[in-house]
Amino acid sequence: MILDKGYGHGGDVYSQKIRLDFSANVNPFGAPIEVQTAVRASVDNLSAYPDPCCGCLREKLAALNGVAREDVICGNGAAELIYQFVGALKPGNVLLPVPSFADYESALSAAGCDPTYYPLERENSFFLTDHLLSAMSSDVDLVMLCSPNNPTGRSVPRELLLKIVDRCRETGTWLFLDECFLELVDEDKAFSLTDRLREGDRVFLLRAFTKAYGMAGLRLGYGICKSHALLEKMSRLSQPWNVSIPAQAAGLAALDRPDWPEKARAMFRTEKLFLQAGLTALGFAVLPGDANFLFFSGAPGLYEKMRDRGVLIRDCSNYRNLGPGDYRIAVRTRAENEELLKIMEEALGV
Amino acid sequence: MILDKGYGHGGDVYSQKIRLDFSANVNPFGAPIEVQTAVRASVDNLSAYPDPCCGCLREKLAALNGVAREDVICGNGAAELIYQFVGALKPGNVLLPVPSFADYESALSAAGCDPTYYPLERENSFFLTDHLLSAMSSDVDLVMLCSPNNPTGRSVPRELLLKIVDRCRETGTWLFLDECFLELVDEDKAFSLTDRLREGDRVFLLRAFTKAYGMAGLRLGYGICKSHALLEKMSRLSQPWNVSIPAQAAGLAALDRPDWPEKARAMFRTEKLFLQAGLTALGFAVLPGDANFLFFSGAPGLYEKMRDRGVLIRDCSNYRNLGPGDYRIAVRTRAENEELLKIMEEALGV
Repeated sequence: MILDKGYGHGGDVYSQKIRLDFSANVNPFGAPIEVQTAVRASVDNLSAYPDPCCGCLREKLAALNGVAREDVICGNGAAELIYQFVGALKPGNVLLPVPSFADYESALSAAGCDPTYYPLERENSFFLTDHLLSAMSSDVDLVMLCSPNNPTGRSVPRELLLKIVDRCRETGTWLFLDECFLELVDEDKAFSLTDRLREGDRVFLLRAFTKAYGMAGLRLGYGICKSHALLEKMSRLSQPWNVSIPAQAAGLAALDRPDWPEKARAMFRTEKLFLQAGLTALGFAVLPGDANFLFFSGAPGLYEKMRDRGVLIRDCSNYRNLGPGDYRIAVRTRAENEELLKIMEEALGV
Repeated sequence: MILDKGYGHGGDVYSQKIRLDFSANVNPFGAPIEVQTAVRASVDNLSAYPDPCCGCLREKLAALNGVAREDVICGNGAAELIYQFVGALKPGNVLLPVPSFADYESALSAAGCDPTYYPLERENSFFLTDHLLSAMSSDVDLVMLCSPNNPTGRSVPRELLLKIVDRCRETGTWLFLDECFLELVDEDKAFSLTDRLREGDRVFLLRAFTKAYGMAGLRLGYGICKSHALLEKMSRLSQPWNVSIPAQAAGLAALDRPDWPEKARAMFRTEKLFLQAGLTALGFAVLPGDANFLFFSGAPGLYEKMRDRGVLIRDCSNYRNLGPGDYRIAVRTRAENEELLKIMEEALGV
């Protein structure tokens, strides 16, 4: 929870009047009907405590991901698992490429850990390169990566990711890899580490239902990790009933619709090009990205101008290693994207 | 979350076949229709992130409790707030009367804190007495109390509670007071500290929707505290979106039904006497209590015998300062209570 001030994320449709939200990167088709039905049905069972083991859900997630149930941990949204992971590991020396999702830093700070920032270079389109490997010395306890990265949309290339895992094996470094957006990435570019994990690997993979299944309001995420000792420590840092009954029911229903993210992916293929062209025509420098959002830069002040017109975009100036004039927008439906560009044109007075 | 083993609470209707659950102490009437409707309606809004400030809910809770919105923090169930409170305070020296709710101990352990146990005496019916005051020296950082206490059902007497608050003011000790069951206590015995709090008081009051509004599956609790610095610290220990959209909607709806707990309280008045008489007739020593559950003792083995018959009661042998033969049951409707006693009679072969 945030008490009253200091919320610096997207999706804040509560403290201001917003008609169109382009700041939160969720599936524009929302949640599949099966998920909605499951949540409605769970109303008959609200008096019971949730299953503290998330038994059925972990069973199903394990089967779908080709891992053991014991390798899976569920959380009250993926975000909770970031705090639990960092709190359980209590790493001394953390290498954190930036810009990246701000809650890695918040979670590290909550655990009393001061990371070493590894700046991704704007000149190199914020790409993560092999150079990271040389920074991964044996006194680095943890590297935290997000692929595709938030807010840049750049994926860690497959070859590099495998080299990073190898390097972790050599140095005993932990890898935290946030794959929360992966299901919304085109299949030829989506590369998960799930089937590369070996016993003894110090790798934690973070996954969410939030984005791919349009259910951010329900809070459900999970992690995959071969270190059961770490998962055990993580679970002891939280209450037993952190994943609600509606969330568990929704997760089970979502897994029956593995096709759901593809519907959105297909749309993103064309809509990303559409938005990219539109933003470029408006004079912005757009970063080609693999995710369901676009990062672009231009003159400062766009956020305020759009907000005044009832449209929320993500002002990225509070991301470390970014600044005024850096923005992120979600890719949405054609009608919404057209409206966004129209309002932007109006706002810029071009 | 619990990974797979080691769940020692009530309400575990998932790992075993259970027909009647007397182990979880929630309102037997479940959630009011308004809450159910609110959760169903929230399905239309699942794609959005929840309000990280829980703005409307905190506003309404503040008004109802006669405190400021800034004095209120919401959590993913009251249980989450226990972990956040202890994690934010990081108390060195904690005085913990036992038996009490096991998650105080789990939360303290997660924060690396080893409490000093203050055993409540069975001979004195587990009553908390003025003797506690003498144990509250100035080197005690925190006292954690539950009123009415779980699992004994005993309330901290009003006069003693006020003396404890005064003592805390003298010694600079924090008081964590769990009032989660208070709304289900008869009004003449229910005494909250809410309207006794002064600026500067080191008191944290814990409240839940779980019990009084029969919505344990949704996860919603809150805390009231005059130290905004502590609330700020607590909020930084969690993700921004810990309270789901259905939970916030349900909470708002529940607050429109302040009469709902009274319906259950009225039933408890007669049903507690009915169960007490029945258990006594079966040879158990029953502790008269103020809560919506009853603590009783007798021969060990009852838990297993009842479970084999599809009835879950709370085996209290894993509570600190209790042992085999100690049990807790929820007070439920007459039909359910009659069935419980009938099955118990059968199980005991009397």
